[in-house]
Order: sequence, then structure tokens, then C-alpha cells
Amino acid sequence: MTSATRSNSTTFNGFEPTPESIPPPYNELRLKLPSNLPVNYHPLNPLEFLLRAALIYPNKLAVVHPDVKTPAFYTYSVWSRAQRVQNLGYALVKAGLKPGDRIAVIAPNVPMMADVLQGALAARVILTAINTRLTPQEVTYILEHSGSKLILIDSEYLRLIEGTRIPFVVSNDTGNSGDPYERFLSEGRQFSGEKGWSGLEMEADENAPAMLCYTSNGSKGVLTTLRGTYLAALANAFEGQMNANSTYLWILPMFHAAGWTFPWANTFSFTTQITMRSVDYPLIWKHFLHSRVTHYCGAPTVQIGIVNDPAAKHPPQQIRAYIAGAAPTAHLIGSLEKIGIEPIHVYGLTEAGTYGPFTRNYPQESWSSLSLEERSKLIARQGHPFVTAGGMRVVYRAEESPDPNGELVDVPKDGKTMGEIVTRGNIVMKEYFDDVEATKKAFRGGYFGSGDLAVMHPDGSASILDRSKDIIISGGENASSLAIEQELASHPHILEVSVVAREHKKWGERPMAFVTLHPQHASKWKGRHGDFARDLKAHAKERLPGFACPEWVEIVPELPKTSTGKILKAQLRKVVAKL
Amino acid sequence: MTSATRSNSTTFNGFEPTPESIPPPYNELRLKLPSNLPVNYHPLNPLEFLLRAALIYPNKLAVVHPDVKTPAFYTYSVWSRAQRVQNLGYALVKAGLKPGDRIAVIAPNVPMMADVLQGALAARVILTAINTRLTPQEVTYILEHSGSKLILIDSEYLRLIEGTRIPFVVSNDTGNSGDPYERFLSEGRQFSGEKGWSGLEMEADENAPAMLCYTSNGSKGVLTTLRGTYLAALANAFEGQMNANSTYLWILPMFHAAGWTFPWANTFSFTTQITMRSVDYPLIWKHFLHSRVTHYCGAPTVQIGIVNDPAAKHPPQQIRAYIAGAAPTAHLIGSLEKIGIEPIHVYGLTEAGTYGPFTRNYPQESWSSLSLEERSKLIARQGHPFVTAGGMRVVYRAEESPDPNGELVDVPKDGKTMGEIVTRGNIVMKEYFDDVEATKKAFRGGYFGSGDLAVMHPDGSASILDRSKDIIISGGENASSLAIEQELASHPHILEVSVVAREHKKWGERPMAFVTLHPQHASKWKGRHGDFARDLKAHAKERLPGFACPEWVEIVPELPKTSTGKILKAQLRKVVAKL
Repeated sequence: MTSATRSNSTTFNGFEPTPESIPPPYNELRLKLPSNLPVNYHPLNPLEFLLRAALIYPNKLAVVHPDVKTPAFYTYSVWSRAQRVQNLGYALVKAGLKPGDRIAVIAPNVPMMADVLQGALAARVILTAINTRLTPQEVTYILEHSGSKLILIDSEYLRLIEGTRIPFVVSNDTGNSGDPYERFLSEGRQFSGEKGWSGLEMEADENAPAMLCYTSNGSKGVLTTLRGTYLAALANAFEGQMNANSTYLWILPMFHAAGWTFPWANTFSFTTQITMRSVDYPLIWKHFLHSRVTHYCGAPTVQIGIVNDPAAKHPPQQIRAYIAGAAPTAHLIGSLEKIGIEPIHVYGLTEAGTYGPFTRNYPQESWSSLSLEERSKLIARQGHPFVTAGGMRVVYRAEESPDPNGELVDVPKDGKTMGEIVTRGNIVMKEYFDDVEATKKAFRGGYFGSGDLAVMHPDGSASILDRSKDIIISGGENASSLAIEQELASHPHILEVSVVAREHKKWGERPMAFVTLHPQHASKWKGRHGDFARDLKAHAKERLPGFACPEWVEIVPELPKTSTGKILKAQLRKVVAKL
Repeated sequence: MTSATRSNSTTFNGFEPTPESIPPPYNELRLKLPSNLPVNYHPLNPLEFLLRAALIYPNKLAVVHPDVKTPAFYTYSVWSRAQRVQNLGYALVKAGLKPGDRIAVIAPNVPMMADVLQGALAARVILTAINTRLTPQEVTYILEHSGSKLILIDSEYLRLIEGTRIPFVVSNDTGNSGDPYERFLSEGRQFSGEKGWSGLEMEADENAPAMLCYTSNGSKGVLTTLRGTYLAALANAFEGQMNANSTYLWILPMFHAAGWTFPWANTFSFTTQITMRSVDYPLIWKHFLHSRVTHYCGAPTVQIGIVNDPAAKHPPQQIRAYIAGAAPTAHLIGSLEKIGIEPIHVYGLTEAGTYGPFTRNYPQESWSSLSLEERSKLIARQGHPFVTAGGMRVVYRAEESPDPNGELVDVPKDGKTMGEIVTRGNIVMKEYFDDVEATKKAFRGGYFGSGDLAVMHPDGSASILDRSKDIIISGGENASSLAIEQELASHPHILEVSVVAREHKKWGERPMAFVTLHPQHASKWKGRHGDFARDLKAHAKERLPGFACPEWVEIVPELPKTSTGKILKAQLRKVVAKL
């Protein structure tokens, strides 16, 4: 692909874009300016990153979809100079959608998904990207709650919308003229009358809604803004030093919190994006080793799958991995670094308030002299807010607040006192869609309450101890399930571990650990689970206070996870409840 | 300095900051939030880059001033965690200044200058940094026009304000407790009552004024905004890939268009800034070779001085040079690249409308196969707008506009048709201070008219041909003095060249070239200026159309320049007028 990336044509590896995807000469890459904008004010709009990339690097590959029957290779010129995203914008307008209307997309990481994350902004409609792992009932709820007027759907997921009355457009993910989605785009091109980008008006209000992202359980819709998306994307690109020489591999689903704003971090920094329909480790390694991938995102569990794949070895180029969803363990950090992958630990409320990453762990020069284990404890901290975030504090929870008026009060910076992480600023959501009460509750005290319990260290960085609901109250002590997991994970035979509270007659609650074993070591403990439990408890005793040591250890073949690889503690709790 | 940069103390090389510069423990790095800000809105404010740098990298050197009798070394902690910038903010408040009031600074690149570019924002006063090369009369005009209520002045320049009735604070540039400027800071600390940053209120309006930069001739004051400065600084940092490992050398005067917003590009990216009182080439090379400098800014003439210094050699680290003020010649680009300095050609209206750089020449992969001369012609283009700029067009000048209603009309993208560069967006000035008429004129048609004449290439990049007033009308043809200079500069014996119009009986005007010779070659032409003129004309004839060839060539010992190294064509025109 490397040589193709540098080519000067719209044809790659024999792939021909549809005729309607070919831009006309001299197409202006400028949206129609709203009238009465001050000369020195331009509304921040992440769509403009794309237009600019098409202006400056038209022949660079923008979106590559290589691992399907009919692979597709779109340059910035084809993708955006005029055509595919613009065609989609016009197609949505032709479909009768007005600014502020909602549409939905149900698809894995495919070009249509990449298109619509940009094209929705072109038509000024609000996009809700629906998790493909939800049930038809959950999908129906989201479609209804969002009031979606159109669905773009990958043919693999048609069963999720069976019987729907909402109009939909199917993509067979072929890129061929016969594909219904391609016909939809072609109609957009025709409808445009070749007015190009300047036939689509720029949104004058940078605080207008951009995306509508539903939380994991689908109950709340998080509304983001153009300004927030612009500033979050820019910070993501900056933190990973993404630039025109970068190649981004889509491992994280784009439907997950709008891909943590990486669709726009990529266009901001002129990268090439590679899409894959599923998280397929051998395929990931093919791209790491042969497609010059430089950046990707993933939760720790996905990262563990990557480093443990048999194909894993030091790639020829520098790769940076954004890790979020949970703190990476020392073992994971060591495994990534051993093969030359630089971990960037970021933290955000991916589905409940912000735009993906909000803080970053900023490595310090002085850490280089520490052992991996010591260093990993520092890297596991959630760190400091992004430059374009407004601020983060750790404050006493309402029930513990020393302020009688309910004002937020910072906990001391002692690395010990537990409080709640609260955030505000440009990359906090605008509101919960159509839910004034929930929004008001979430914004109590002028900050968004994350529900994450944390301490503030003397250096002003925060460490999450737990989600409120995950804390284990053992003998009156607060035990952080995350801190316990962090220590148990340092046992060399453990692949993954999750700790939840289990009722205990004497102590109220005690920790119970569910673990999966590393394939290399699993055979050693076959039929000897009791011995392993003893071994792990001894390991824990050396590292944790008594109240935090697991009372029970269970070896399981795998842990229950969300589509993005987050461990589902709720399911483990259900298991525990039946014990 | 390298090891010092990594140290963990506030003392470097024996330098002790004043007691009032030492921060207290646990000082919050948060300005007081204005009430009623929406939870998801945080006003963009470049001052916050500094507070964030102090939070994340308190022990990193922020401002280093090594080449004076009493060298100074300030960490981010000392510079900003609490103290120096914060003290200055309080000192300004104590001096009775209110938000929106103006103050002036007259100083070379010294720590006081670095302080006040941040500290003015802390007190929400508007800073006008005055060019130290102006006459006392010009300085008086600016002080009066701006209504400055306080002056911070380096003792070397006291003669510029002799007899002023405006209160002033003198700095002897010592950093010692006895220095009047240091006493001023100390009073600020006392006045603060240790309320820290949270005793200073954040500006709620991101469109509030930030800096007041007077044009070269001092006649107009360009007012910038917080939002514009934030976005311009961020783009500057991004374009040069500045980061926490970078060291920025202050060669460009900070008083020049607020240092092209690099004071904030530096704090945004956590760099170490080195200040020097004057442009001293041996000193520059000392720092290039021994202080790990990675970035600097300068006009081509300054860059020529750098590459021609006897100490010039390939530094051990990668250096990136932002070049603006005029396009770099092939010879300069070649000379920089030979010693491993990467030129970043940017363009902005440094004193007449924007915030320093506004566009950048974006190198293309395909250029690598071209000859230096061909490549240099492409690098000499002003290129495409920065990501945070709103847009740039090349439009027909009013007198040539095909639109009867005076609407701006783009010239064709043919690389030939000349028009005027117009810009709009977030990094265009707010207004000319106290000059409604001039602002209105500059903003005609909803864009800022730059006065720079240019063509638009098919790839959407612009090339400046000339300032309106520098164009040479020879036999009815428009000859670009810049294009002529670019070609003449390829003569191997020429160090610098400037071309202006001279009256001609037959052709109306013809080009006259003023040149300085490269020291290596000057002796060859001693006493043979006529031969050199013939040689240069022959060189020109091979490269330029007849009407653009210089009719006259004059060798001069040096060219007249502004303080920032821009050649003063106005002075050459005066010489010509007397011929």
C-alpha cells in the first residue's frame, strides 16, 4: 500500500471509484458562508478539516478498505474534494432532511461509516451511530428516542431493523455502482447540480449539535457540538503527534462515541485511515507489519489481544496506541513497549458525558529511571486534562461535602482522599438529548459529574479508584476494585482479571476475582484451580491491605465484555448474586 | 543546559529566583471562573496554556536568559505555577489597571518581555509591545494613541520615553531583588494575599481584546483577540511539531506582532524558551550547537545571516526554522537544508491584519524528485491557510472586479491572473484600534484585504507576486519585484537583492536591482561593478521576460532593513527618486 499511498491517480490496485465519485476540475473547497459573520469569526467546524485535507493533499489515500471481496481505495480527492462525502450531504438534503434532524447509521468500520460521520455534518443533520451488538429492541428504542428519519445500514445488520417504518438505505459494502448505498450517493451528485461544496451552507453556530451518541445500555443520548468535536479531535491528534505521514487503523468501532473523535483527528492531520469490518488480530498484524500503521485506539482488553497474537513482533515503524476504557496494567505496558508500541493512556467518559479522551497521562522525564512496575503505576494514573478541555477536579461527593450550600469542594491533593471526578469545558457534552432532568442532574454544581471515584495526587494528576458502583466496602473500608485488579494483574500467569464485591457475613462485602489465564500457563493449573487461588491470594497479600485481598478466586475461560472490549462487571455481579 | 533542563529544583547554575518568585505548595492553577458559564463552554484563552504547563511540567525550564551579566533560569513552576507571571498580574491590578486598559512594554527579548505577554492577560489589560527601533516621537505617538496607562521598560531604552508623564517601571534585566522590575513583581505578590491564580478572574468573553500591535510605521494599531491568539498559537505549534522536548530560541523580536503568537505556541507545547537581547549570530550558533534548540523564527535576511555565519555547521539535533516576511530563495533553502535545518515557509501579515503566520507552504511527497531550484520555486509559494484560519482567497481587485456590485470574485486558478489576497476567520484581527474608518476599509466585502498581489495555482495554493505598491509597470506589463528578486538571487555571487521600479522614458518604469555580494565572491568584482551588472543581466535574460529584466544594477554594502530584517523598499525608492 505504501507506494499506492503516494500515487497520483484515483485508481489503486485496480479499484475504480464510481463515476459519480470522480470530482470535477476546479471544484471550490469552501462551504457557503452564512451571511453576517464577523470578518474575524469563523465557526469551528470539524467538517472543514476534511475540505482542507482535500485541498492540500488531494492525491493522498484517505480511506482504505482492503480486507473485503471488493476492496476500496479512496483518495482525499475522491472522498471529499468533491465527491463521496459531498454527494452524501446532497443525498441527505434530497431525502428531505433539514438541519437538526436526526439520522442513524448501523454499520461496522466500513467506508459508509467514515462517509456519514462527515456527510451528516455537511447536511447539518445529527447522526446517531448505533452499536451493532445491541438487540433489535434496543435499536428500536434508540431509533424512536432519537426520532431518526433515515437509517443507513450495512446489509449484515438488516435483522436489527426488521419491520421498521423508517426509510433506510442499505450498503453491501462493495463500492460498486450497483450497490444501493452507491446509488444513494449518485443521486446526491445528480441533485447537487454540480454546485459543489459551496451549494451547502456552513453552520453559523459552532455550538450547534454534531453527534448523538447513546450510552452502552442505550438509555441516554449524549449530544455533542461542532465546537467540542473540533477541539477534542485536535487535542487527540496533537497528543499522538499525528501528521500527514501517519496511517490510522480503525480497531475501535466508529460507532463508539463517534470513534472518540478520531474521524476528525484523522482529517485534521491528513492521515490515511484503514477500515476493517471486525477486530481481527491476524489482520491487525498484517496492517501493523505491512501497511505502515502508526496509530490506533483500543481498550486494554483489545491491546492484550494484540500483544498476545502469535504474529506479534516489532513493526518497522513507530506505532502509538491510545489506551482508554480502563488503566493499562504493568504487564500490558511492558508487552507493548517490548514490541515498540508507545502507549498513550487517555481517559474519558466515552459514553456518558464527553467526547472520548479528556485527560492524558503525561509521561515525565524522571520516570525513565524507574522499574517497569513503578513506572506502570504512574502511567496507570489518568493524569491531566487535554489542552482543549476546560478543567477537571476531584471533589467531595455530595453526601460528604464539607460545604453546607452544596458547592463543589476539592479533595486534598494527598493521593488518598477519595472524591468524584468532575469536568467542564468545551469537550463536555451539550446535554442528554430530550432529557432535561438527567442533564440537570449530571451538571450539578456547574460541572459534569462523571461517577468515577478518584484521588488527586500532589502533582495535580488524578487516579481513578473505581466507578461509584464498583467500589467494595469491606469491613467499613473502601476497596477500589481497579486497584485490586491492577495488583492481581501483576501475577505472571494472569491474562485478564476483574474484581467485584460479594456479600460477606462478617465484613459486609469482600472482593471476588474472576481471572483468565495466559495461554502459556493455563495447562500448569489445569485441575488445580484451588492451588492457583492460594497462589494468587499469597501474591495479593504481599501487595494489598488485608481488606482488599480477594476472598474468592474463580478461573473462567473468558470474561464478559462490551463490543468495545470493556469488561461487563454487571454480568459478573449477576453471577455473584447467584452464589 | 541540557542536564539543567531536566533538574528538579528552582536553582540552575547558581541562579536564585527572588523569594517572591518561589511558589507556595498546593497553589491551584485555575483562574476564577466567571459565573454563569455553560458547563460545556470554556472561553479560549492562551494564558491557560501557561497554567497547564506549570501543572504538568513544573520543573521544566520555561524561560532561560543566559547571555547577560546575571543570567536567569526560570522553571515553569517559578515562572507561572505561582509566581512571576501571577505576581505581574497582581502588580498590574494593584497599579489600578482595569480590564480593557492599555499598557505598553519597550524591551528586547528578555524575561520581562516574556512575562508581560502572559501577565497582561492575567490582569486582562491590553498590551502594546513597542518596537525598540522607533524614534522617541514615534513611541510617543503610539503611547498616546493607545492610551497606555503604564509602561514597562528595559533600562537600555529609557531615552525613548524621556519626559513622559505616563508612570513606568524600569527593568535592569538582572532578576535580582534590587531590580525595580523585580520590586514591582514582589509588590504584586504581597498584594495577592496568597490568593493565587484563583484570585484573578478569567475573561468570560473569548473575543475580548488580547494584544495591540502597531504597524511598522506605527500609524495603525492592530487589535487581536484571546480566541484568535489561542487558535493561531496552536496552529503554529502544530505546523512545526513543537512538543515538550522542544527548545525555542527567540531570534524574532517578541515586540513584532506579539512574536507571531509564539509566546503561546511555546507554552501550549511545553517548550523551553531561550531569550537573547539582540540578534547575535555567534550567540545563535552557540545555542544551536550547545542548547538543543529545535525551533526559531526569522525573516529570510536573518536566515541568510545564520547560514553565512562562520560557525555554521550541522547541529546534532533537528532544527525547524519558520520563515516569513518574504519568500526564501532557492539558495537560502539549499543552505539551510545542507546543515540540516528544515525550512517551514509561512506567510502572514505580521503587522497589518493577522497574528503572524496565516498560511503555510505544505511540502508534497512528489517534490522530493525535483531539483533544488524547481523545488524551491514550489516552496516559495505562500501555500494554503492554517487549519485554524478561516479561509484565504485571491480575488480581483476592486478596480478590475467583474462583479458590478463590488462582490469579491475569485481569479481563475491558473497561476497567472493577478488578484489580491483576502482572508477572514479566527486569526484575522478584531479591528484597527480606535479607527473605525480604516477597519471598515480593510474589511471591505467581508474579508480582510491584505494588499498583497498574488496568483492562485491550480492546486489551490497562492503565490505572492508583490505588495500592491511594489509592482513595476514596465511597458504596460505588470512585473513582480519579488519574482525578479527570486530569479536574480539564483546568481551564485549574490547574498541579497531588492528590486524597485525606476522611471523610464520609453517604458514608464523599469526594474532597478540593489544587491549585496556574498563575502566569498565580493573581491572578484571589486572595481568591476559594471562587469558584474552585465553578468547579472545576462543571468536575468535567461530566466525572465524582457520587461522584467533589470535595467540597472547597483552593488551596495548593505540593504536598508526594519528591525525584523524586512528590506525597506521605501528607502530604496527614495534613493531611486534622486537618481
